[in-house]
Amino acid sequence: MPDAQSIPTHWYNIAGDLDVAPPPHLHPGTREPVTADDLAPLFASGLIEQELSTETDIAIPEPVREAYASYRTTPLIRARSFEKALGTPARIYVKYEGVSPVGSHKVNSAVAQAYYNSLDGVTRLTTETGAGQWGSALAFACARFGIDLEVWQVRASYDAKPYRRFLIETYGGTVHASPSELTEAGRAVLARDPGTPGSLGIAVSEAVEVAVKDPLARYTLGSVLNHVVLHQTVIGLEAVEQLRAAGEDNADIVFGCAGGGSNLAGLAFPFIREVLHDRAKTRVVAAEPTACPSITQGRYRYDHGDIAGLTPLLKMHTLGQDFIPDPIHAGGLRYHGMAPLLSHTVELGYVEGRAVRQTDAFAAAVEFARNEGIVPAPEASHAIAAAAEYARGLTEPEVIVIGLSGHGQLDLPAYDAYLSGKLV
Amino acid sequence: MPDAQSIPTHWYNIAGDLDVAPPPHLHPGTREPVTADDLAPLFASGLIEQELSTETDIAIPEPVREAYASYRTTPLIRARSFEKALGTPARIYVKYEGVSPVGSHKVNSAVAQAYYNSLDGVTRLTTETGAGQWGSALAFACARFGIDLEVWQVRASYDAKPYRRFLIETYGGTVHASPSELTEAGRAVLARDPGTPGSLGIAVSEAVEVAVKDPLARYTLGSVLNHVVLHQTVIGLEAVEQLRAAGEDNADIVFGCAGGGSNLAGLAFPFIREVLHDRAKTRVVAAEPTACPSITQGRYRYDHGDIAGLTPLLKMHTLGQDFIPDPIHAGGLRYHGMAPLLSHTVELGYVEGRAVRQTDAFAAAVEFARNEGIVPAPEASHAIAAAAEYARGLTEPEVIVIGLSGHGQLDLPAYDAYLSGKLV
Repeated sequence: MPDAQSIPTHWYNIAGDLDVAPPPHLHPGTREPVTADDLAPLFASGLIEQELSTETDIAIPEPVREAYASYRTTPLIRARSFEKALGTPARIYVKYEGVSPVGSHKVNSAVAQAYYNSLDGVTRLTTETGAGQWGSALAFACARFGIDLEVWQVRASYDAKPYRRFLIETYGGTVHASPSELTEAGRAVLARDPGTPGSLGIAVSEAVEVAVKDPLARYTLGSVLNHVVLHQTVIGLEAVEQLRAAGEDNADIVFGCAGGGSNLAGLAFPFIREVLHDRAKTRVVAAEPTACPSITQGRYRYDHGDIAGLTPLLKMHTLGQDFIPDPIHAGGLRYHGMAPLLSHTVELGYVEGRAVRQTDAFAAAVEFARNEGIVPAPEASHAIAAAAEYARGLTEPEVIVIGLSGHGQLDLPAYDAYLSGKLV
Repeated sequence: MPDAQSIPTHWYNIAGDLDVAPPPHLHPGTREPVTADDLAPLFASGLIEQELSTETDIAIPEPVREAYASYRTTPLIRARSFEKALGTPARIYVKYEGVSPVGSHKVNSAVAQAYYNSLDGVTRLTTETGAGQWGSALAFACARFGIDLEVWQVRASYDAKPYRRFLIETYGGTVHASPSELTEAGRAVLARDPGTPGSLGIAVSEAVEVAVKDPLARYTLGSVLNHVVLHQTVIGLEAVEQLRAAGEDNADIVFGCAGGGSNLAGLAFPFIREVLHDRAKTRVVAAEPTACPSITQGRYRYDHGDIAGLTPLLKMHTLGQDFIPDPIHAGGLRYHGMAPLLSHTVELGYVEGRAVRQTDAFAAAVEFARNEGIVPAPEASHAIAAAAEYARGLTEPEVIVIGLSGHGQLDLPAYDAYLSGKLV
């Protein structure tokens, strides 16, 4: 059972630990560094403080740790059967976030965001969601902290992938198909194109519009921003300790999938801390889909986080705010940009990108499932594929850590498509 | 993370611990007690030995414990928020099996059954499945022990609820819609009724027919039989210890859902052992659906485990081998009979039945999900509803243990039906 006493007491903020400070977010109008006041209409005060903080260790409030205790610590699994199947001398460890109540790492930040909003007396949160991982995690957290939740879900997912919508509703949240008639942004899109499948960019605009009009409401984001990355460091902080408990000094290399970047950064930053303080030489690989290769193909520049340009300008690896990736099954990786903190560590040489094809990701995931019993989320499958390829090429033992950000039980039709040869 | 060192070393066999021995299974032809030889064409030798054993403690083989270690021990969760919502003075603990790779307790027996079959050199297993919990658990186990698996899935579920079929296929198993053209039994049914939705009884007949014709194949069952109940006692053995570690002497009352009975028996028998040895006065409640009330409405008599009468005669609470329950969402509880060992303990007064309506089960499950974050499987929701009703009526503190046999993430359309008022 989860070991609540081993849950970290502090999140790790890499922004305070780097020699070169990360570039600030800029106000979209003035292009000056954003201030706490600029962000106040959008986010809870505790989250804004974290967004701008350069403290390295930020205490996890007790109510958040209690919520974590319902599923943390999460397992670090030695994947011996998978090692054998790959024929590698590597020792492969998998940090598995799929044991969370909604089956993914998203809960780690959702719980913190709901908590800080409850401290400010916020009674209503809004957000967008694609496939629904973030929406369902936030619905779980809002039920726990007594906050109403409205989620704008991209119309195409709302219609085609209803399971996570049902999950949000079971937790008591409300889901609107986006674009909706409830906002100016939504009505404008529907007037132009009544049959539109929607997009994350439109859904963001709707959720932001509703939040800023209601003084008791705030908006939340499930990745990209510094405070989200911060919350996800519980993953890596646990993994570093668990690896030691398993008798390993350090990881030689860490693989995680990267969409908005919070999952990989959450796993990797505590390992990079060891590197920064000369205690290890761990490499970090960000596995991203060839369909949306922000790190390997994007430019490192200031860009908006959304299509409508409502968010601050963020210095990041980006394919451009209007880039629309091909529809792949790893919906969580279909984002045009990359977390600024993660992009910064890429620039500093601590993280390297690797693009993985969807079919290669599923091939590795099926091999993993048949050997280790866990069906990976399609997002995490990209990390498994990159790690498997690396492990197969080794002739000497190395310690590999893979971030398994969630299970794929609500994504099984994608596995069916792969197994029956329908996937390209 | 799971605490592999606390996984039990032995299963608990209540048959060796009761003053009154349980009635034997009878051969369907001779009506004499079945022998190991009678069962040899159907089951692995190690499982037959367990089926007929009266040893109280049976060692768990190391390869099975290693497979358990990928997800056990499972958490015993103090449900403080749920307690508050109910306004009860009770301390409620939930033993949660949903952390297993397929999301239910079924893996506990699947792993053992695959292992003992691998010892006998069996290369092919057959089984039936309804909604797919058992089929997917066995597919996981067969992948681990290198055995081919063929599953006959009831046609109605095969078409309407494909997620667990995809899960079986991802693990490498083969799924046939039942009735199929592959067996005499299937062809006979199809000749009479080409559009039949199928039934568990037909699927059993197909799986048995294929197994007995192939000397390297065996058949497996996911509940009811003594050896399946035995394997599931890891649930209760852990829970008894975890409850003590949480500072409680004993449980006052234990609630579990009962379909074929192995889940409830697995949780409850180790608690009943404490009662048998005068160390506790724990009551046990078997929550069953009003749509299929074997204990509360059935008769205690010898009956077949399947419609075709191919299995041994079992002394059990039964609604009759040809009873077809109404279609309810808790597919795992739609079985006409009850595990003979569980029925026997009901007769001896250690277990009482309680029938729960489907809508009451979902109401309790939604309350539980919003407070504790876990969406229960529809089956387990019956136990939660029975426990909640009991807890609400208490004026003094009591210790309640609820068996939460699995999560409901693949059953979310049922929650949608409930929340939108479509359920009766």
